[in-house]
Amino acid sequence: SVPPGVLPLCRQLLAWGRAPRQPPGLLLAQCRAFSNNKIMVELDESSGVATMKFKSPPVNSLSLDFLTEFCISLEKLENNRACRGVIITSAVPKIFSSGLDITEMCGKSTEHYAEFWRAVQEMWLRLYGSNMVTVAAVNGSSPAGGCLIALSCDYRIMVENPKFSIGLNEAQLGIVAPFWFKDTFVNIVGHRVAERSLQLGSLHPAPEAHRFGLVDELVPEEKLQEKTGAVMAQWLALPDHARQLTKSMMRKAVLDRLVAHREEDIQNFISFISKESIQKSLRMYMEMLKKKKG
Amino acid sequence: SVPPGVLPLCRQLLAWGRAPRQPPGLLLAQCRAFSNNKIMVELDESSGVATMKFKSPPVNSLSLDFLTEFCISLEKLENNRACRGVIITSAVPKIFSSGLDITEMCGKSTEHYAEFWRAVQEMWLRLYGSNMVTVAAVNGSSPAGGCLIALSCDYRIMVENPKFSIGLNEAQLGIVAPFWFKDTFVNIVGHRVAERSLQLGSLHPAPEAHRFGLVDELVPEEKLQEKTGAVMAQWLALPDHARQLTKSMMRKAVLDRLVAHREEDIQNFISFISKESIQKSLRMYMEMLKKKKG
Amino acid sequence: SVPPGVLPLCRQLLAWGRAPRQPPGLLLAQCRAFSNNKIMVELDESSGVATMKFKSPPVNSLSLDFLTEFCISLEKLENNRACRGVIITSAVPKIFSSGLDITEMCGKSTEHYAEFWRAVQEMWLRLYGSNMVTVAAVNGSSPAGGCLIALSCDYRIMVENPKFSIGLNEAQLGIVAPFWFKDTFVNIVGHRVAERSLQLGSLHPAPEAHRFGLVDELVPEEKLQEKTGAVMAQWLALPDHARQLTKSMMRKAVLDRLVAHREEDIQNFISFISKESIQKSLRMYMEMLKKKKG
Repeated sequence: SVPPGVLPLCRQLLAWGRAPRQPPGLLLAQCRAFSNNKIMVELDESSGVATMKFKSPPVNSLSLDFLTEFCISLEKLENNRACRGVIITSAVPKIFSSGLDITEMCGKSTEHYAEFWRAVQEMWLRLYGSNMVTVAAVNGSSPAGGCLIALSCDYRIMVENPKFSIGLNEAQLGIVAPFWFKDTFVNIVGHRVAERSLQLGSLHPAPEAHRFGLVDELVPEEKLQEKTGAVMAQWLALPDHARQLTKSMMRKAVLDRLVAHREEDIQNFISFISKESIQKSLRMYMEMLKKKKG
Repeated sequence: SVPPGVLPLCRQLLAWGRAPRQPPGLLLAQCRAFSNNKIMVELDESSGVATMKFKSPPVNSLSLDFLTEFCISLEKLENNRACRGVIITSAVPKIFSSGLDITEMCGKSTEHYAEFWRAVQEMWLRLYGSNMVTVAAVNGSSPAGGCLIALSCDYRIMVENPKFSIGLNEAQLGIVAPFWFKDTFVNIVGHRVAERSLQLGSLHPAPEAHRFGLVDELVPEEKLQEKTGAVMAQWLALPDHARQLTKSMMRKAVLDRLVAHREEDIQNFISFISKESIQKSLRMYMEMLKKKKG
Repeated sequence: SVPPGVLPLCRQLLAWGRAPRQPPGLLLAQCRAFSNNKIMVELDESSGVATMKFKSPPVNSLSLDFLTEFCISLEKLENNRACRGVIITSAVPKIFSSGLDITEMCGKSTEHYAEFWRAVQEMWLRLYGSNMVTVAAVNGSSPAGGCLIALSCDYRIMVENPKFSIGLNEAQLGIVAPFWFKDTFVNIVGHRVAERSLQLGSLHPAPEAHRFGLVDELVPEEKLQEKTGAVMAQWLALPDHARQLTKSMMRKAVLDRLVAHREEDIQNFISFISKESIQKSLRMYMEMLKKKKG
């Protein structure tokens, strides 16, 4: 349902800090076409709180299309003065997001890898740097890139089901989390916990994740919505301007580091992912996933 | 009781790292006049431990005069070879210090804002960088700048009364803690706790503050003096030289950062505080305080 | 049993990042002569796990010879494709390692101090930067440089005996831990715990060390070997390449800092240790140790 030419245009408009701001009306009109496709966005104008609900079964994997839609949806909310906070959650049972879509990293062209990686960066830059209050309502497992989305919010509430796990488990797949995944993780759990967890590629069951601060709070599934609303209200009680400046002060160093090394980071990703040994690992991993399903 | 001209002179002498060191005798003679005014200083020469007791009712707010006296008192002790440690506490019931004096930031001239902010910086540079052992005996609430004083000491003991709270609550007032408040806070509680606490402008009741390390120890009020003395003795058991070099190694990066950006930080403060929206917030806050009292 | 000329040659070969890599056969042949002298090295080729056991009674102190042997042993393992992990432990009852050998720092020539300090740096650069999985099985007390060895591993398991203590207690001796000891410590326990522990020169009994994460796990002495093996197996389950890149990403900043300031750090050590006051402190400390023994 996306008219040809719109998707690349929207992506181009999203290029961080380079494209001049378009009149928001124009951008929204162009993008509305494919929005609400993989992510359901609802804005409660009375409270100023939007909900972004991932609905890209089976596992909300972060494909190029998903990431593009995520960035555009977030930008729309960011530019909407009626919106002050965003709750990020999943409409797919048992999974928050499975992380980066491996099919985007396997057997594709260099240009595709570059475009995909730029979209991953974009997603993080926009979410970690958002002026809005961002709360992750983690209602399922959340490995790798899914964990990054949660880590990039201001607050994380997770369903207390020990079958749900969360973590940056890249090392288990034979790949390495990029430095800005690591920086975001270290900012939350500290250097030692991050070093151990990243080297082991650990997926932490919800109670363990809570114990060392990877998530801020655990709740029974039926209390998730209520609790998320209460936390959001607490954060929205602060004057936006002071809260935003404080948030920016805390996160600027880590955001600036990627902005300064963005092209280099893309090149690193391309040369790493293009290695035959890495491609082989990823193919084997996908085969394994297919067999599991079958 | 201060002879005219002495106060500006003393302030000038305090200019960090620029004024050549005056013969201490001269400085002391000039300044003694207004010392022991808002801060009571006692030195026990047998133990080498001084006590600085804030006695500036109703709430020990950090006015320009208070800060100037604080800096001069601290410098006198720093230059006194008989003094190796300082205990900082309050003579006013239920309050340690209420933080920066808002009247100094409201409806004043640019020159006044600059002088005031330089004095705030000076206080922190001297206390956080002190060669002496510094122990905060926090016997009352300690918001904002009061919290900064406690954070800048080597050790914090707080009365275990849950009615006493401590924190950098600037965001609640619509203002933003400067980066060096933040750096000092992060050094103690880590990045994540600081990010959340600063964004929410949280004031933490003593037990909560203790739980995440904002204060090192809680004691019943009647044990505060005894415990503070014991902790001081433990720290003084170390050879001064090795302890001082170690302290400097731990704090230098953060101290140097303000020294390198001091004028810029003053300009930032002036342009922020001069905004009509901020002035309005502060006036409303002062009105609210007056009504509370009345 | 070391042929003349071999020791200096080996040391030279170890010079970090400058000497071109020698054919490993040559290096091993030259060095084997004095290996297995102060450190017993065993490699289990089936598991790929080596054990380095300190056997330099009475206290496994880190003399120049010990450090040289340590570096050469580690390099041999690093270059041996059959070896993927190293367990570091002690063959001397009740002591892991007592740290730097004070006799190397007392009454010697400037050249000797330089050579000694370069060997201490080398040991840390190789261990903290090792590509292998490194696990410390801390089966005795581990002050100062002994603690540094444990801190530089990927994981620390300590015997739960509260009589065994661990810490960077340099300040107690009137000396100061260098910045890279501090950086390594901060990476594990965070800034606040490190600041307090370093200033007080604390030696933490095993249970306390465990409580704030200085060691990862406590076990009864009879379970140490079994537990160490299990932990090693867990870390070796990860693909080497991804784990190594992740480890390097976590540690590079701190390693690079010493590499960039290595000569300056040696000069600092020499000028500090050459002070008459420091020499006097060290002589007194050695006298005290002798009397204790006598």
